[in-house]
Amino acid sequence: MGGRAHRVSLGDAWSRRVHPDLETERHGQGFDVERLTHLLDGGAQNTVLRRGVESLVQGDPDFSLIHNYFMTPNERYEAAIRRRVLLHRKGQRLGWLEDGLQFHYAYRAISGDVTFGVHGIATKAIQSLGSEEQIAKWVPLCKTYQIILTYAQTEMGHGTYLQGLETEATYDTATQEFVVHSPSMSAIKWWPGDLGRSATHALVMAQLVCSGTRQGIHAFLVPIRCLKEHSLLPGVTAGSIGPTMDLDHADNGFLRLDRVRVPRENMLNRFAQVLPDGTYIRFGTAQSNYLSMVVSRVDVLVNGVLPTLQKACVIAMRYSVIRRQSRLRPSDPEAKILNYQTQQQKLFFPLAMSYAFHFQLASLQEFFRHSYNTILNKDVSLLPELHALTTGAKAMITDFCTHGAELCRRACGGHGYSKLSGLPSLVTQLVASCTYEGENTVLYLQLARFLVKNYQRAQQAVGPTSQKSLPQSVAYLTLPHLAKCPAQGAADFLCPELYTVAWAHMATRLIQDAVHHLQTLVQSGAEQHEAWDQTGAILLQAAKAHCYYLTVKNFKEALEKLDSEPAIQQVLKRLCDLFALHGILTNSGDFLYDGFLSGPQVNMVRTAYLDLLPLIRKDAILLTDAFDFTDLCLNSALGCYDGNVYERLFQWAQMSPSNISQENPAYKKYIQPLLQSQGSKL
Amino acid sequence: MGGRAHRVSLGDAWSRRVHPDLETERHGQGFDVERLTHLLDGGAQNTVLRRGVESLVQGDPDFSLIHNYFMTPNERYEAAIRRRVLLHRKGQRLGWLEDGLQFHYAYRAISGDVTFGVHGIATKAIQSLGSEEQIAKWVPLCKTYQIILTYAQTEMGHGTYLQGLETEATYDTATQEFVVHSPSMSAIKWWPGDLGRSATHALVMAQLVCSGTRQGIHAFLVPIRCLKEHSLLPGVTAGSIGPTMDLDHADNGFLRLDRVRVPRENMLNRFAQVLPDGTYIRFGTAQSNYLSMVVSRVDVLVNGVLPTLQKACVIAMRYSVIRRQSRLRPSDPEAKILNYQTQQQKLFFPLAMSYAFHFQLASLQEFFRHSYNTILNKDVSLLPELHALTTGAKAMITDFCTHGAELCRRACGGHGYSKLSGLPSLVTQLVASCTYEGENTVLYLQLARFLVKNYQRAQQAVGPTSQKSLPQSVAYLTLPHLAKCPAQGAADFLCPELYTVAWAHMATRLIQDAVHHLQTLVQSGAEQHEAWDQTGAILLQAAKAHCYYLTVKNFKEALEKLDSEPAIQQVLKRLCDLFALHGILTNSGDFLYDGFLSGPQVNMVRTAYLDLLPLIRKDAILLTDAFDFTDLCLNSALGCYDGNVYERLFQWAQMSPSNISQENPAYKKYIQPLLQSQGSKL
Repeated sequence: MGGRAHRVSLGDAWSRRVHPDLETERHGQGFDVERLTHLLDGGAQNTVLRRGVESLVQGDPDFSLIHNYFMTPNERYEAAIRRRVLLHRKGQRLGWLEDGLQFHYAYRAISGDVTFGVHGIATKAIQSLGSEEQIAKWVPLCKTYQIILTYAQTEMGHGTYLQGLETEATYDTATQEFVVHSPSMSAIKWWPGDLGRSATHALVMAQLVCSGTRQGIHAFLVPIRCLKEHSLLPGVTAGSIGPTMDLDHADNGFLRLDRVRVPRENMLNRFAQVLPDGTYIRFGTAQSNYLSMVVSRVDVLVNGVLPTLQKACVIAMRYSVIRRQSRLRPSDPEAKILNYQTQQQKLFFPLAMSYAFHFQLASLQEFFRHSYNTILNKDVSLLPELHALTTGAKAMITDFCTHGAELCRRACGGHGYSKLSGLPSLVTQLVASCTYEGENTVLYLQLARFLVKNYQRAQQAVGPTSQKSLPQSVAYLTLPHLAKCPAQGAADFLCPELYTVAWAHMATRLIQDAVHHLQTLVQSGAEQHEAWDQTGAILLQAAKAHCYYLTVKNFKEALEKLDSEPAIQQVLKRLCDLFALHGILTNSGDFLYDGFLSGPQVNMVRTAYLDLLPLIRKDAILLTDAFDFTDLCLNSALGCYDGNVYERLFQWAQMSPSNISQENPAYKKYIQPLLQSQGSKL
Repeated sequence: MGGRAHRVSLGDAWSRRVHPDLETERHGQGFDVERLTHLLDGGAQNTVLRRGVESLVQGDPDFSLIHNYFMTPNERYEAAIRRRVLLHRKGQRLGWLEDGLQFHYAYRAISGDVTFGVHGIATKAIQSLGSEEQIAKWVPLCKTYQIILTYAQTEMGHGTYLQGLETEATYDTATQEFVVHSPSMSAIKWWPGDLGRSATHALVMAQLVCSGTRQGIHAFLVPIRCLKEHSLLPGVTAGSIGPTMDLDHADNGFLRLDRVRVPRENMLNRFAQVLPDGTYIRFGTAQSNYLSMVVSRVDVLVNGVLPTLQKACVIAMRYSVIRRQSRLRPSDPEAKILNYQTQQQKLFFPLAMSYAFHFQLASLQEFFRHSYNTILNKDVSLLPELHALTTGAKAMITDFCTHGAELCRRACGGHGYSKLSGLPSLVTQLVASCTYEGENTVLYLQLARFLVKNYQRAQQAVGPTSQKSLPQSVAYLTLPHLAKCPAQGAADFLCPELYTVAWAHMATRLIQDAVHHLQTLVQSGAEQHEAWDQTGAILLQAAKAHCYYLTVKNFKEALEKLDSEPAIQQVLKRLCDLFALHGILTNSGDFLYDGFLSGPQVNMVRTAYLDLLPLIRKDAILLTDAFDFTDLCLNSALGCYDGNVYERLFQWAQMSPSNISQENPAYKKYIQPLLQSQGSKL
């Protein structure tokens, strides 16, 4: 089930050879690309398994994505359902486990362009928030698609601030039922995926009211469509929310509930329970019900967000060695655009992110696996840090990946605006992630609260034990203060220890600054909440600096574990350096502000940064080849493995409906009368 | 023909009153919004004229844009042609001049959602590059739509670097014709608007070859479709380039020419001519043929780019006083999101841009009017500065407007991702502008060349006359050097003179830095071209700083002319302050680097900046109302004048095809078999 060669996918004569401008980039490898792929896959056996699945998918015309570009939103929805069903059948036939690696790789192979993504998220939410009996009852129904579930949290007038949700679930002692109800227009559930036309059940997040008391947000399983006819059940209004920037296949919908009754057992009750008489009992903290969001954030980052950025890098990098423009020397032919410093500056930062976030997510997943089970067992001591880590990672990674993919898209000039490049859709998928699963500004501010709290704890504690009392990710707040960076020359800035300390310093200083600002406002008479709002801009900055620090630190630590692969270690270290230094340069004011860096030191950073570009340039194609995406899943006229950009773009454009039909109904109706209205003088 | 009231457009009960949360924002005006509107319109008489046109359009259901959201690309193209034809007829009936204000306002009223935009650009190109006879022959044919023209410059493999264009026009002395030819796949014209299915003629930019010698890029009028049947003429292949991020109505197309012959008179010959015997004569400089691009850049910025940002501001601002989320004080109801500092920080910068660029474009247009005619008369002395000004303005304004509109879109959370908000389309239109009419990085580097050249001239010249020798926009390069900013407190940073000088200092320093970097590289043995490339990152930074300086300076000078409107002057000054200070804060490293600002001074900037936010907050709705966009042209469920956001969003969503049909073909085909495949256990 071979290596990269099978990525040359199409049967045309021109696609049988790799474009020489791309071919030369793959010669004389300074490191073993295949081993880097194994590393990214988590082992050679995974690479083999993945390629096997990809070959199955690649060979099946049912899974081609290219027609997506010419479909209406409805057609895309239908195609995505069809793919989901075909994949499910294929998996059954081949004995794939629903949560197994094969399905995981199959989704990757078709770029996740299937329906029932939110069905999967909602299923996991039952596993997080349901009791063992509830899990045993509902999860098998979901996994075998006997029901289709949506996760109905966001409302028309309420998003990331969960306490503001209006939907109510009022316990009726007489019948032992919950009455689930949307009390207003703004309470209508709005946005849930798989809801518009597909779901049979909704996991509804609602304000629990029992014995007349509000107990906060809890999750309720509510049947919404008849399992026989698929018609909406009494009291349920639902439908599509209309066109969105992308995600046509996601079936985003609305849901209005008019006093819909569900039995008492339909409240997920791992962390809280309502007894038959209406007594409310809580087993966890009020925050326990947020666990399902933590799970889905990690999932979205690993499987959705990061690969999307990586694909953008692959496409832009390959195009940039085929595209030639202008001359580097008057006597030379036009140069590959990747040879220009400004193009390298655009593309290598997203490339560095692609690796930085890979290692950061690996570390986050490790912490997640470790803490998730203890939380399920109602030991919530690690929940605040897990929440802070996923919140920060979600905000930073979605922001940066969006920015990075858009850099890649623009770096492809006009062709990056063509949907056929694949890039527009990568960007419009990513911008969605900045808002869904928690709006990023709100998330950064939640993280800031965690940082401020821990900074204050660190200040209060004294002595050598103080560091132990802080969660691991903020332990740096107690490190001894370094007033000035000791670097003496550009080469010093290629030391991971040095720039990690620089980032720790900057993050600490900004958190300190925010705390100071808060205190000053409170001392001058402001209320706590007001002071918090008036410090918003600084808190945001502090949270962002903290996230950047964590990413640099994780990358550095990941490199340290690569001693057995020195060639790969060396090439990835350049990306780590670039990531850290790019951040210092674009935030140089924050490093110069308190004299931690001097003007001449900023010059050294710039020199070190610019000198990295030609070094990374050598390996740029290999570093993107290593992600090992198939042509099918890139679905890009610009980014295929063979580099035959213009031929493919021309060929794909011919598939436009108006080119195929060669008809233009507007001609007879409008153009002809217009042209002839004056009595031609020609 | 009245004022703003007619903007409440729809007949539903809920739309008859303005939402109280928006109503209160319009009370107690600190300045006269109507007079600000007049100022933006260039006089009260223009406002009256504009509103008259808008009423005509608003009252005609043919011009409704709302169905756009539910159309296929082909349907959008057809709708846009239909609108163009209806508008043309309406204009004829009412006696509007083709270049008159009424048409201008009519396009604005329907958000420019008509075809034949490039036809207009190409017509203007004939006026710039054609002789008087050519203008007399062709322009009337264009204006009366006896022909439809496209401007065919960009090729599949060649964009902003015009010298790289491959299409050839070889003069054949025997027949006195040009043979226009696409010699390769990458030479195919790709992207021109109105080309795919509409144009009868193309203005083809091609390499002129006469008597065996290449003479550079010239413009040729080439008939491509038969005027009777609209079929492609012999030797012509053309069609659609397929789906793009937006601009479905633009009919972007491709054009391949196989030795198509046109008569000698079809080369536009204001600046160069080929005599019957093949002798080539140039009247202007080699750059004269770029004049048409200068014209279309100014046009696109004024009529396309800036209003698009302004609309995004209107929508986001109105939504932000309706949307409530979280609490500012525990006892209060949820707060309007515009009351949060972080939301103000997001939205007020785009708002400030909206005004800053208005004044910058006014000044650019003034310079343009002044210099254009002298250039047409073959005095090209002002061409370099005109080119530099439009290049810089194009790059900066498109970059910033795109960024600003995306800030607005994200500031609306999830609903900003719904196409029905209007925001996605505003953003995807703007991102196109970063690439078309010249890719922004290339444009910044062109400007940088002008800056470096003039900096070197300024260094060489000495004495008091030196300043006179520099073009006006770079005269600041000779100003006496100020080593440190004299500000002593936050209030000092509200002085336009002070921050304009700060920006002048920073821009000068970066240009100097770039020149120094270039010289160092050359001295250490690099070739000129190589040194230029290796300084790319710094040159970009310098060009951006120069543009920011010019914008601040223009805004400051525009304010000085508003002495007769002190209330408006005061409120706009806050935006000028905000624009200047926001830029200093986000680039604080460049001001701290050489000690021009100290750390404590950066704190003062931040204090001054944060203190501006609540002041601007008071007038935020009025400042966006002043743009006076109708509901029709905003075409936004979130941004209507009446603020009935949720009702409208719900109503518009019901127009989705699947909601109207209440059918889901995918159910019978896929969902039902899936749900029932296990034999339900429910």
